[in-house]
Amino acid sequence: MKPETGVDRLNTLLESYLKIRRDSEKICEGLSAEDCQLQAMPDVSPPKWHLAHTSWFFERFLLRTGPDPTPPIPPLYDHLFNSYYETAGSFPPRAQRGLLSRPGLDEVIAWRHDVDRRILELSSDEKQGELHNSQILEIGLHHEQQHQELLLTDIKYNFFMQPFQPALGTTRNRKTDAHAPALRWERLPEGVHTIGHVKETFAFDNERPAHRIYINPVALASRPATNGEYLDFIRAGGYRQVELWLSEGWNWVRAHHLQQPLYWHYDDHHGWRQFTLHGWESLAMHEPVCHLSYFEADAFARWCGARLPTEQEWEVFARRRPLTGHFFDFSDLHPAPAHDDASQVYGDVWEWTSSSYAPYPGYQPLAGSLGEYNGKFMVNQYVLRGGSCATPWQHIRPSYRNFFPATARWQFTGVRLAKDLL
Amino acid sequence: MKPETGVDRLNTLLESYLKIRRDSEKICEGLSAEDCQLQAMPDVSPPKWHLAHTSWFFERFLLRTGPDPTPPIPPLYDHLFNSYYETAGSFPPRAQRGLLSRPGLDEVIAWRHDVDRRILELSSDEKQGELHNSQILEIGLHHEQQHQELLLTDIKYNFFMQPFQPALGTTRNRKTDAHAPALRWERLPEGVHTIGHVKETFAFDNERPAHRIYINPVALASRPATNGEYLDFIRAGGYRQVELWLSEGWNWVRAHHLQQPLYWHYDDHHGWRQFTLHGWESLAMHEPVCHLSYFEADAFARWCGARLPTEQEWEVFARRRPLTGHFFDFSDLHPAPAHDDASQVYGDVWEWTSSSYAPYPGYQPLAGSLGEYNGKFMVNQYVLRGGSCATPWQHIRPSYRNFFPATARWQFTGVRLAKDLL
Amino acid sequence: MKPETGVDRLNTLLESYLKIRRDSEKICEGLSAEDCQLQAMPDVSPPKWHLAHTSWFFERFLLRTGPDPTPPIPPLYDHLFNSYYETAGSFPPRAQRGLLSRPGLDEVIAWRHDVDRRILELSSDEKQGELHNSQILEIGLHHEQQHQELLLTDIKYNFFMQPFQPALGTTRNRKTDAHAPALRWERLPEGVHTIGHVKETFAFDNERPAHRIYINPVALASRPATNGEYLDFIRAGGYRQVELWLSEGWNWVRAHHLQQPLYWHYDDHHGWRQFTLHGWESLAMHEPVCHLSYFEADAFARWCGARLPTEQEWEVFARRRPLTGHFFDFSDLHPAPAHDDASQVYGDVWEWTSSSYAPYPGYQPLAGSLGEYNGKFMVNQYVLRGGSCATPWQHIRPSYRNFFPATARWQFTGVRLAKDLL
Amino acid sequence: MKPETGVDRLNTLLESYLKIRRDSEKICEGLSAEDCQLQAMPDVSPPKWHLAHTSWFFERFLLRTGPDPTPPIPPLYDHLFNSYYETAGSFPPRAQRGLLSRPGLDEVIAWRHDVDRRILELSSDEKQGELHNSQILEIGLHHEQQHQELLLTDIKYNFFMQPFQPALGTTRNRKTDAHAPALRWERLPEGVHTIGHVKETFAFDNERPAHRIYINPVALASRPATNGEYLDFIRAGGYRQVELWLSEGWNWVRAHHLQQPLYWHYDDHHGWRQFTLHGWESLAMHEPVCHLSYFEADAFARWCGARLPTEQEWEVFARRRPLTGHFFDFSDLHPAPAHDDASQVYGDVWEWTSSSYAPYPGYQPLAGSLGEYNGKFMVNQYVLRGGSCATPWQHIRPSYRNFFPATARWQFTGVRLAKDLL
Repeated sequence: MKPETGVDRLNTLLESYLKIRRDSEKICEGLSAEDCQLQAMPDVSPPKWHLAHTSWFFERFLLRTGPDPTPPIPPLYDHLFNSYYETAGSFPPRAQRGLLSRPGLDEVIAWRHDVDRRILELSSDEKQGELHNSQILEIGLHHEQQHQELLLTDIKYNFFMQPFQPALGTTRNRKTDAHAPALRWERLPEGVHTIGHVKETFAFDNERPAHRIYINPVALASRPATNGEYLDFIRAGGYRQVELWLSEGWNWVRAHHLQQPLYWHYDDHHGWRQFTLHGWESLAMHEPVCHLSYFEADAFARWCGARLPTEQEWEVFARRRPLTGHFFDFSDLHPAPAHDDASQVYGDVWEWTSSSYAPYPGYQPLAGSLGEYNGKFMVNQYVLRGGSCATPWQHIRPSYRNFFPATARWQFTGVRLAKDLL
Repeated sequence: MKPETGVDRLNTLLESYLKIRRDSEKICEGLSAEDCQLQAMPDVSPPKWHLAHTSWFFERFLLRTGPDPTPPIPPLYDHLFNSYYETAGSFPPRAQRGLLSRPGLDEVIAWRHDVDRRILELSSDEKQGELHNSQILEIGLHHEQQHQELLLTDIKYNFFMQPFQPALGTTRNRKTDAHAPALRWERLPEGVHTIGHVKETFAFDNERPAHRIYINPVALASRPATNGEYLDFIRAGGYRQVELWLSEGWNWVRAHHLQQPLYWHYDDHHGWRQFTLHGWESLAMHEPVCHLSYFEADAFARWCGARLPTEQEWEVFARRRPLTGHFFDFSDLHPAPAHDDASQVYGDVWEWTSSSYAPYPGYQPLAGSLGEYNGKFMVNQYVLRGGSCATPWQHIRPSYRNFFPATARWQFTGVRLAKDLL
Repeated sequence: MKPETGVDRLNTLLESYLKIRRDSEKICEGLSAEDCQLQAMPDVSPPKWHLAHTSWFFERFLLRTGPDPTPPIPPLYDHLFNSYYETAGSFPPRAQRGLLSRPGLDEVIAWRHDVDRRILELSSDEKQGELHNSQILEIGLHHEQQHQELLLTDIKYNFFMQPFQPALGTTRNRKTDAHAPALRWERLPEGVHTIGHVKETFAFDNERPAHRIYINPVALASRPATNGEYLDFIRAGGYRQVELWLSEGWNWVRAHHLQQPLYWHYDDHHGWRQFTLHGWESLAMHEPVCHLSYFEADAFARWCGARLPTEQEWEVFARRRPLTGHFFDFSDLHPAPAHDDASQVYGDVWEWTSSSYAPYPGYQPLAGSLGEYNGKFMVNQYVLRGGSCATPWQHIRPSYRNFFPATARWQFTGVRLAKDLL
Repeated sequence: MKPETGVDRLNTLLESYLKIRRDSEKICEGLSAEDCQLQAMPDVSPPKWHLAHTSWFFERFLLRTGPDPTPPIPPLYDHLFNSYYETAGSFPPRAQRGLLSRPGLDEVIAWRHDVDRRILELSSDEKQGELHNSQILEIGLHHEQQHQELLLTDIKYNFFMQPFQPALGTTRNRKTDAHAPALRWERLPEGVHTIGHVKETFAFDNERPAHRIYINPVALASRPATNGEYLDFIRAGGYRQVELWLSEGWNWVRAHHLQQPLYWHYDDHHGWRQFTLHGWESLAMHEPVCHLSYFEADAFARWCGARLPTEQEWEVFARRRPLTGHFFDFSDLHPAPAHDDASQVYGDVWEWTSSSYAPYPGYQPLAGSLGEYNGKFMVNQYVLRGGSCATPWQHIRPSYRNFFPATARWQFTGVRLAKDLL
């Protein structure tokens, strides 16, 4: 639904603002201040840092460009909570975010609330409808939703590395003996299609402009691959067959002695289990496989006699399906089992595509520092599509492009197969 | 010209064989046995290794599959001169190729000649026309031509790192004060085009199958960018402006303190010079800039208000031009100045495209170990097109795809700009 | 004073126990739980870990060998809070101590108190005088005193690396314009001397056995070198004169771009300052220089036309002086100014000796796991003597041997010069 | 024998000069130019570099300080063949010595001969007896003898890493079934002794001044430990028992998966063999064990219930024995079997001592750049004594101090046990 303009639009945004800001804090409710400081590898950030950085984003790009251009910000926050915006000032090395014992969690939460108060004040001044600010406000909300997903995946990784391996959620009752529906191949219509965001509603700059592409004969799988299917690959020696792997992937797998997805573990007593946000659970064969690197997804697809789809193929496939699925909002923070009545194209697991993250023809980054949001990462990363069980539902679109390096495994990343029909 | 079949075709191939094998040795004529052992970084190989590996290729994939399946090969050669074919046996770590003091250069040359003799014998047996072998023979020739280019670029790098910085060729007389013709923008026809190798003549598996793509509104530059234009970028502070760079490129440039292309040097006495296969020469402003990484090519394009072309755009552009240019065969081992009467689309410098190296829809790697030739490298590499002054002329095609990581600079790599017309 | 035997001795020890255990907690009183989790480099440990590890030491080596051999210990603690005792079980990599968000600081403190309670119970049972346990108890107290010093130096380093650079103590009023007394050279009696611990009182195994050594003609400085003297070395270009440095030290200094001691900083506005446990202070020229690496101490001595003393020379020098000085107990956590009426041989700053840490002739490590306490570190480390302003007074002896690698700078490490009289 | 003064002394030196210079070249006679360029790890140097560096030493420190202060030296040689003399100019990084394809081996040999000619000319001018030069000449000869040993050990390592593992010498006939004589413990006289070089004959600065030390009650083994004894250590699980190892050694052994000395190899077909300068040979149990790191020597000694001797103990032990043994001059480039009639204290294998390399009391380095010869390495290295089968006989003295880091294994390094008698 296209948002209204002017006052209505701003009111809608402010409602979202209050909910989204609250949601971020809710995610961390079960964590101690010490948990919120954990950074178990440079790729993940401490929860406290996420809570602070998302506030900085509003403070830096919205409050500071408002009528009061120098709102109070505690000393050093402008440096500490900048993530990577080179043109917006300095920032600490990513790997040192875990050293921020100060400000304490309490101070960060208090600052969040202060920013919230000032955003509301500003917005009430603006109710006559300053369009510029509402656009930044909207970006800030989508930005915070991205960090909600990162909060969940980073907490999962931190807790996995924590000696006690605690759970964020409570223990679940699950059916683990059900079967996934048979995989069907669904042919795409060959020819010229349009991809990219066409509406006037919100989308990131990397989804624009909409443009034409050509789809060659191809079919995509009716559902993501399952744990059971991936286990077949493991049992068939997939991690030991060099001919299945990209050269760089093979070297990486051997160097790290990898033999299964991240969070999987086998022992004779328990059999196969996986670490989830609910703690260790037995592996359900009919759930979508996740926490795969690009290299693993690619090798698995080759073993299946298939390949990964391109992001263009994925989007053409996805546009023909309803935007529903198993998201953060409704979810128990884990992918739902494969089921027959939908393709699980949105939600559950991000799906690796074979497309390197690149600008669309005619791509224009946002003006100013926000131009660094997406464009500067368009190299040596691969596009993922569809959102996951940790993505807020309202955050996702058919044109939405996520991206990670080929070795990243700590996101909820899975695989949907594709097959050439040439 | 499409090769003949049967006996004629084999005769033509054998003529090429003799010439190409001789050419590889000619390149190394001015080098001592010690020069031929140099490996100044893991990416480059010692010339002696190139001479041996190209023989191994014929020995392993042709002689060994011939009527005498176990031809004599000196002990260990099968291990030592395998480059990266995991399914064809073991091989030493790439960085240790410089430790091959034995076999000596003389022995390697003698082995080359022995392989040549046996290839001719085998072929004379085959004159009735065993098609299989002539295909492998043809691949072997294209393979050796690739290594001729690597011989030149690796010698250049080794000699640059050698304390005496010797020259492979002799000193040249060059005009350095001429001007490059003005750059013109040439619009591509929007719409569906076919790219990839369509003929039955030789092409690598990665150029197939031909397939349709859609070209959005775009124009490409009439010629590669020049040293003069790149120097303007340097003088305007291009290496210090973070907003011009991909994030990974910026970190790389800073970590290595880069301020100019590989082989460039400035001092007050000589001004700007570059190291060439003829030794140090003053920088000619109207020559195509080369020895750029992808990151530099991309930053330069952004500074120009342009971008790199995709490989699809490049191929549509190139297919409309004659396959002529400044190649290894006619060349003085350095890019020729930009000139008005041609677009220099082939030869001179490889042109970076913004396309990550990926399989075409319907891609089928070769069967057996030769399937490792291309497919397993299709990740985190960028496609270059058109060949260079170090590429044999007969080796290049409009559909030819070269590929290197974004940081590679020791090839003759330059840039042709593209501009969106959206 | 030689401790009494039996019950008296145990009572004395228990008094010390209560005080020492309390002191460790007092050091951390001003820290938040988040501060207590900081680990800014692998060499330092989070304060919370120190508090837990010192409890583990009593639990593992005393309670577990007591009448109730399996006292309750929370799960994983035995693994998490083992520092490096390979024969006592497993332990996490040192660099991962900062990941211990759980147990929380509160739990660690509660566990401390539980251990304390059980130690007192055990001791009351033992008042008939089980000698074995009281020896372990005594070692545990000296062990905890060592960790008190590490708590202070690690907090100092963590706070220095913390973006806000907070202070542990309050701001001080200091005289910074006083002068150090002139340095005098004090000759040692040439000939055979005995070093090492001779009494029956407590000493670590590495101080034993007492044995004879020969002192050649040498004089030692009457006091440690001062900040003012070290600043002269800096101003004379000491960090740029290769001939003053050990080869390994020179490479290290250049690789890290070192130009002054750790915690020193110069800017035009403030002049020279140093970071202390009281925050940034202006540099007082008459205070002993500290936070020097062995390499810096050695280069400075060479610049002075002197050298570092051996540990044998140091001990012969020290044995002739009263065991008084500026220690943790009386101190404001920073070395006191040089003064005329004493040699500052004990306390203030640890003094680097030129002696590599090695076993004394006849050295016998303790039996069992405690044999790992000292012996296994006797390689590539240098001996420091005398204690510092962060060392508890009762912890030090003339024979006391501290040791660190030549690059360590985060301890209170200074230098006393020696001069050959040959 | 004490050398004569004046003309006689110079004549004696020149005779040695001619022999020593010739010996260096003889060592390399069986090597190709390509072999002479090998550098299989940064610690070893290519043979060609040794041949050139030893010439540079005479050129730089003798010819250049002679009557003709600017003798001709080919361009860059002064930079290329400086090893580590910071005050004598620049030098390439050690790890890049293998890149010196130019000058070729022929040019290096020709330059050697040119330096020889000029040394002889200079000396004939000097026959009136310029003392200064003859001292430098003498140092240069001892320096070249050190490089002869390095030539042998570096060739051994390079050839071991070479895929063909060639031999420098020819195959030998050896008795491998003999027994070593039983090990006896020989008590040193307790009390004050003098160590260090006392005569006026040549010695390096690090052997001076002679000074007094105190020997506590100790006994040393009558012979070095044998392969058979070390194999017992291996079979008893020595490499897997953490309590035998220094902490740093344990981490190093595990990180490199070490399970035997360098050059040892076991397979079911051949049993235990070792790589020697004569190629692979079966392991003779009665030969001294060698190619041990300090860490292995130390762990082995601990397993034996013994320890390494200090260098003071070693020297007191050695001074009472004749300076004979199995040296480079008489040797087949491998340690000779243990035998009953001598202690093998000189020659065969360098013996690790527990002494960190440090200056003697009153140590004065040589003046000028030669002061860098020894002094700057006096940290984190351990002293070895006695020379090896690769050391020229005339090069060794009771006071001679060799030194290597605790991980070095490519020298002929073995172990003589010591035992405290306290």
